[in-house]
Amino acid sequence: MKQLKVAMLGFGIAGKAFARILNQTHDEIFKTKGVDVRVVAITTGSRGSLYCMEGLDLVEATRQMTESGKFDNNSPTFSSLSSMDVVKNVDYDVVLELTPLNIFTGLPATDHIREALKRGKHVVSANKGPLAWHYRELKDLAKANNACFFFETTVMAGTPVFNMADNCLQFCKIDKIEGILNATTNYILKKMSKDIPISEIMRAGREGGFMEADASMDTEGWDAAAKLTVLMNALMDADITPDLIDRTGINEITTEDINAAKTRGNVIKLMCRGERHADGTVTGKVAPEEVPESDVFTDEKLVAVVSLYTDLMGKLTMMQYGLETTQAGYGVFIDTIRVIDTIICD
Amino acid sequence: MKQLKVAMLGFGIAGKAFARILNQTHDEIFKTKGVDVRVVAITTGSRGSLYCMEGLDLVEATRQMTESGKFDNNSPTFSSLSSMDVVKNVDYDVVLELTPLNIFTGLPATDHIREALKRGKHVVSANKGPLAWHYRELKDLAKANNACFFFETTVMAGTPVFNMADNCLQFCKIDKIEGILNATTNYILKKMSKDIPISEIMRAGREGGFMEADASMDTEGWDAAAKLTVLMNALMDADITPDLIDRTGINEITTEDINAAKTRGNVIKLMCRGERHADGTVTGKVAPEEVPESDVFTDEKLVAVVSLYTDLMGKLTMMQYGLETTQAGYGVFIDTIRVIDTIICD
Repeated sequence: MKQLKVAMLGFGIAGKAFARILNQTHDEIFKTKGVDVRVVAITTGSRGSLYCMEGLDLVEATRQMTESGKFDNNSPTFSSLSSMDVVKNVDYDVVLELTPLNIFTGLPATDHIREALKRGKHVVSANKGPLAWHYRELKDLAKANNACFFFETTVMAGTPVFNMADNCLQFCKIDKIEGILNATTNYILKKMSKDIPISEIMRAGREGGFMEADASMDTEGWDAAAKLTVLMNALMDADITPDLIDRTGINEITTEDINAAKTRGNVIKLMCRGERHADGTVTGKVAPEEVPESDVFTDEKLVAVVSLYTDLMGKLTMMQYGLETTQAGYGVFIDTIRVIDTIICD
Repeated sequence: MKQLKVAMLGFGIAGKAFARILNQTHDEIFKTKGVDVRVVAITTGSRGSLYCMEGLDLVEATRQMTESGKFDNNSPTFSSLSSMDVVKNVDYDVVLELTPLNIFTGLPATDHIREALKRGKHVVSANKGPLAWHYRELKDLAKANNACFFFETTVMAGTPVFNMADNCLQFCKIDKIEGILNATTNYILKKMSKDIPISEIMRAGREGGFMEADASMDTEGWDAAAKLTVLMNALMDADITPDLIDRTGINEITTEDINAAKTRGNVIKLMCRGERHADGTVTGKVAPEEVPESDVFTDEKLVAVVSLYTDLMGKLTMMQYGLETTQAGYGVFIDTIRVIDTIICD
């Protein structure tokens, strides 16, 4: 292999961060692995697409999107190809699924991934919908077509959870997972504990660019439930969907609850817990809990945290700090590198 | 490759745990990777050795050592081969360096590793001495001889630090490392904060089997300095030795110091800090520090913790819990698996 041709579906925060990291490391990748990574297509829903088999200029693509909010239809590489057009017809090696999430259906991302895998193309998904709703089908499809299917970014951005477990916890059985997986609710609860009104917290979060206009997917616990599902499917072979998670959001939590917890030396956190029981059944739960102030989960600076309980390696905890967009881009990037490493090895 | 022939130098806590894990996973390794892992030699300093090219019975070896504190010289596989005899003359694929540590010289472990690498044999070291004192020489020697040289166990036992960074943080630059790396001093400081007399703490630690009769390597900060050196050499390409670490132990810390810190909302911890500065120079420091009680470093249950500061992935923190001996055995085990994965790929 001398080239890795990449198709990007979506060019939002993670996509632009991926482009920046790839641009920065392209020559070093070529030097160390002998592979010239080229992005041959970038699609968006309503902002135009770019297509060029010789490889797109990622700096120029980023400039267009940042300056005018869309790709320039006078550009020689401008294209009207849709995401599905690209998935089905373009000659790429790996597709990056970065389209907007529909947390209740996983569409259209699942369709993109399914079509790519059927063609024997490798898939990197930053979109957690397909993983939460169709994990086993897609994993089996990837295996049957001898294709890579990686998704590090879906939980804790680029923090190595899935790649770490696949590489560094081989032959371990994971029977319990716990953590704080949703950054938005963690932020809201932290600010509420400082007696800041909820309307003010939401405004600051939106202005800071890290909170959706409609944060209900976060506050109702759906985002956390989807992430817990992905973890349980990938690490515990749980074969579940988010609707099977026992889910309570933070909407009912009041400043009074938080202050009452404080008098008991506790902090309220939206905890995620997945477990395989002695009889083989699995259960997943997302709910606000009082955790002791002395616990790592209460670290004010952390964005997300996960603990894995293994048979051979005991308990392992990983913490994510910062909300740098580069971390989501890095998750997509390292999965792409892993595709290269897998191809080189095969 | 159909077989991986393993030579074990040393059969202490990590060695016996490795044997147990290998025994438990042997058939699954064969099933998934097609490799029959056999231990062909086990050496000790003064408790006899075992040697059998057909593969030793690890359950029987463990039984002998546990029941009589030595290998049975009536056993058909009993041998008088020394570690260096095995390293130089036996037909193995990978050698596991598990001999006792000399923290000031790295000997004789460094000699074992050097000889094995010169023969083009793969090396897994749980011994941090060679890594702390001769990292670059040994790494270069491994490269020149196309041999693997892995050492996950040297820092935080099997907690994936080196393998994780190699696999999951590719193309990241690490310019700062901080953490608590020595479990013994962390335990001592924690108990001191509960007003338990130092003599009582040491007695309980020795009886619990996790503290040396002479804990001065821990309390003077040498163990932490050696571990910080290994981290800085492997992750920051620092090319330093433990004597270059600015090192202060915990011997001067009194219960009064700990209580005074407590009144300021702080906890005293033996912190390790390594950094690459803007001018390219690196510095390493091990010293007691007051850290805020709200910090993750103060979690009462943790054994060790490390934070890596990267350019592309921000800050990443990993925590080790429990002092299960299985974790050290797992570190040696996963390095052995990584040797298999590397050979399969080559």
